Amino acid sequence: MKPSIPKGTRDFGQQEMAGRNFIFDTIKGVFRTFGYSQIETPAMENLSTLLGKYGEEGDKLLFRVLNSGDAFGKVDFDSFKDSDGAINSVALSKEVCEKGLRYDLTVPFARYVVQHQNDISFPFKRFQIQPVWRADRPQKGRYREFYQCDVDVIGSRSQVNELELVQIVDRVFSLLDVRVLVKINNRKVLTGFAEICGFPDKVVDITVAIDKLDKIGLDAVEEEMRGKGLTDNAIAVIEQILKLSGSTSEKIASMRSLMRGGSPSGLVSETGLKGLDELEELFGLIDAAGIGSPVEIDLSLARGLNYYTGAIFEVKALDFSIGSICGGGRYDNLTGIFGLPDVSGVGISFGADRIYDVLSGLDKFPKGLKSSTTLLFANMGADEVRYILPVAKALRERGVAVEVYPDSSKLKKQFDYADRKCIPFLSITGADEMASGQVNVKNLVTGEQKAFSINDVQDIFDFLTSVEEK
Amino acid sequence: MKPSIPKGTRDFGQQEMAGRNFIFDTIKGVFRTFGYSQIETPAMENLSTLLGKYGEEGDKLLFRVLNSGDAFGKVDFDSFKDSDGAINSVALSKEVCEKGLRYDLTVPFARYVVQHQNDISFPFKRFQIQPVWRADRPQKGRYREFYQCDVDVIGSRSQVNELELVQIVDRVFSLLDVRVLVKINNRKVLTGFAEICGFPDKVVDITVAIDKLDKIGLDAVEEEMRGKGLTDNAIAVIEQILKLSGSTSEKIASMRSLMRGGSPSGLVSETGLKGLDELEELFGLIDAAGIGSPVEIDLSLARGLNYYTGAIFEVKALDFSIGSICGGGRYDNLTGIFGLPDVSGVGISFGADRIYDVLSGLDKFPKGLKSSTTLLFANMGADEVRYILPVAKALRERGVAVEVYPDSSKLKKQFDYADRKCIPFLSITGADEMASGQVNVKNLVTGEQKAFSINDVQDIFDFLTSVEEK
Repeated sequence: MKPSIPKGTRDFGQQEMAGRNFIFDTIKGVFRTFGYSQIETPAMENLSTLLGKYGEEGDKLLFRVLNSGDAFGKVDFDSFKDSDGAINSVALSKEVCEKGLRYDLTVPFARYVVQHQNDISFPFKRFQIQPVWRADRPQKGRYREFYQCDVDVIGSRSQVNELELVQIVDRVFSLLDVRVLVKINNRKVLTGFAEICGFPDKVVDITVAIDKLDKIGLDAVEEEMRGKGLTDNAIAVIEQILKLSGSTSEKIASMRSLMRGGSPSGLVSETGLKGLDELEELFGLIDAAGIGSPVEIDLSLARGLNYYTGAIFEVKALDFSIGSICGGGRYDNLTGIFGLPDVSGVGISFGADRIYDVLSGLDKFPKGLKSSTTLLFANMGADEVRYILPVAKALRERGVAVEVYPDSSKLKKQFDYADRKCIPFLSITGADEMASGQVNVKNLVTGEQKAFSINDVQDIFDFLTSVEEK
Repeated sequence: MKPSIPKGTRDFGQQEMAGRNFIFDTIKGVFRTFGYSQIETPAMENLSTLLGKYGEEGDKLLFRVLNSGDAFGKVDFDSFKDSDGAINSVALSKEVCEKGLRYDLTVPFARYVVQHQNDISFPFKRFQIQPVWRADRPQKGRYREFYQCDVDVIGSRSQVNELELVQIVDRVFSLLDVRVLVKINNRKVLTGFAEICGFPDKVVDITVAIDKLDKIGLDAVEEEMRGKGLTDNAIAVIEQILKLSGSTSEKIASMRSLMRGGSPSGLVSETGLKGLDELEELFGLIDAAGIGSPVEIDLSLARGLNYYTGAIFEVKALDFSIGSICGGGRYDNLTGIFGLPDVSGVGISFGADRIYDVLSGLDKFPKGLKSSTTLLFANMGADEVRYILPVAKALRERGVAVEVYPDSSKLKKQFDYADRKCIPFLSITGADEMASGQVNVKNLVTGEQKAFSINDVQDIFDFLTSVEEK
């Protein structure tokens, strides 16, 4: 029976890892130029840290780790039976599992900040790239183990932080050569909508409805709001907002007039106005910094909403259809659940799996990723191997990936190996070359072949790197 | 109540991550120049893959993951009770846990090779750097979550592979500036010992005993062998071997004569002679390749033994006392447990935690790791921020880590921030500089201060990088 892995998990082979590393290295490099540095937290957290943070559904999706040792030895199973005699799995699992696998990077980050608050310099700029686990039903594009790639700054309310995240997104996708659209909204503006339409307590219902605008259209959105108890007058106010057009500054100006009492309801929203101030400041900074990607306001953008308190971000690929590839926003109470109130932060998360699919679909991975090795020395026998070892060493010390085929197998087999591994250069240095103090190198792509003195390592290096595929 | 993490696990802060990344990046870079490429496997494996691979003790140390959904709903608890009515935790945990956390990287690698055998080009050169989990009792230097860093080549029996691993070790520690001793043994030679002393079935007992030579001394080792049933004559043969001196080639020659029947027993060991051939070939290759680190035969080296079938490696730091920092060897039946027999391979594992402690203890981390940011632009107000944003952008695009302090706080606070983060350069560009089109940059280490035209980004770049700490 062939061995297998748990459903919803994946092995990453050498090709996939090369692509994934290219993405992660690009993202990390950009994070670092903005002064963010990396932390890591354990895969297992105490369940007391995780439970209740992701809603009832989230609790069910946590992978629980059985206590080590005699986990069941002291359990009184009868006490976990309901009145009908059925076992209460949820209660019993709490009894025998103290730990669970990380469900996201946000809750561990909040835990980290509270636990280490005295060692942290605020504003605290951190990034974190680690796998998370969710017992979701696996399906295409949804896995039970996947990497998250989060960047956050906490301890500052300045819009300069929001700007930085937009700059980071812009720079990452410019380096990855993927055209993206950055969509921005503000939770305070959404609150403003609810206030000026006269249903301040319905902000969640309104936001959930307009979040679906792209998918179901305006009529269905209005129908949903009506179902939630909004009046026709209130819906008319929302409709007026959703239909706003013009440039970003024109939209902000129109909304400001509505929030100041200019809507059919005549109601004023101070929160909405504060949100518009934030949006205006952020777009001013974006203009000053010079962002290559298009950035636009999207009033239907909510992203799960209740969590965010200010800016909300989402990034879409312009040339590939796959949903959002980055998302995030500002939150004002990340660490309150762990007893440290009023820590405001803003962050975004890069969706590595989707970005991989975009690069793959658009054929944007660098060609060089295919071959992990630049030069293969064929193995022509024990003496020949000893002869070329110092050259191989010197090339490696210059950073070139060099292999010496370990066995003196038939040349056909060694050729096949080079071919399957897409190795672009092959050296067949045999007895003749040894006798004349030479090393042969052939470019397998162009067919060009050259003989070098064994002492001219620099010349070999130049030959290998001058034509190396980028 | 302050939140905490499970015992035996760790958070890695920014300083520790910088050090760890330095180690991993160095190791990965060397692996790549030898043509090894990375794979990753899931954190969770099926327990059927893991159980029985690490001995009875290992099975107990596996972290088991509770099945998701209604894990206990259909369990008949009575059927898991022993005759005395006590619950059988081991049997019940198998019933409710199908998955476990990876205990090492070797078994998942074996599983990977068998599962993907048709997609793999042999010889298969892979490395893997991922955390593993063990429910060991936590103590100083022993964690329940730690990274392993394994490099292996499988599908070739050539000693060129053994050589490569020695070269990799030598190169890694040369780059890390740590002096090491590489110790090599060969399992076939150990088998030879057992054969020529007349106790071929006692190879494990003999090896376990002489493995302790360093710790308990020759007398105690002999006492242990006597306790295992070896005769005085047999022990005399072992003693003769352990007392061999001279150069590596002299030692090999002496052992060859013993294995050919020259020992007091007069017995011959073909296996031992094969092991000596391998050692001789490997040391010949080591001489040809030129290894900077000392490499020596250590006949007492066994490293858990039963697993290895040929070369055995161990690496020790010469200037820091901490046990072995790398270890490995050749195995002939990695994948047999999963139904693919006769796959020979050789590999070593780098102990990242110990290497970290060595670099830390010897103060060998590059000084630059302390500061993640090179230049901080103080925030002198909204206009000043907009003024310097394009400069910050241009420097970041040149790879410099630049921060713009997000809030226009008191300068003292901004200074403190730069100080705590060890940021070496500070720019205080205010209204005066704006008026004259300039940017100020101060080297906080030397005190040197310079004014640049805002358009001379290259000059600023040169100022920042010419004195950057290495």
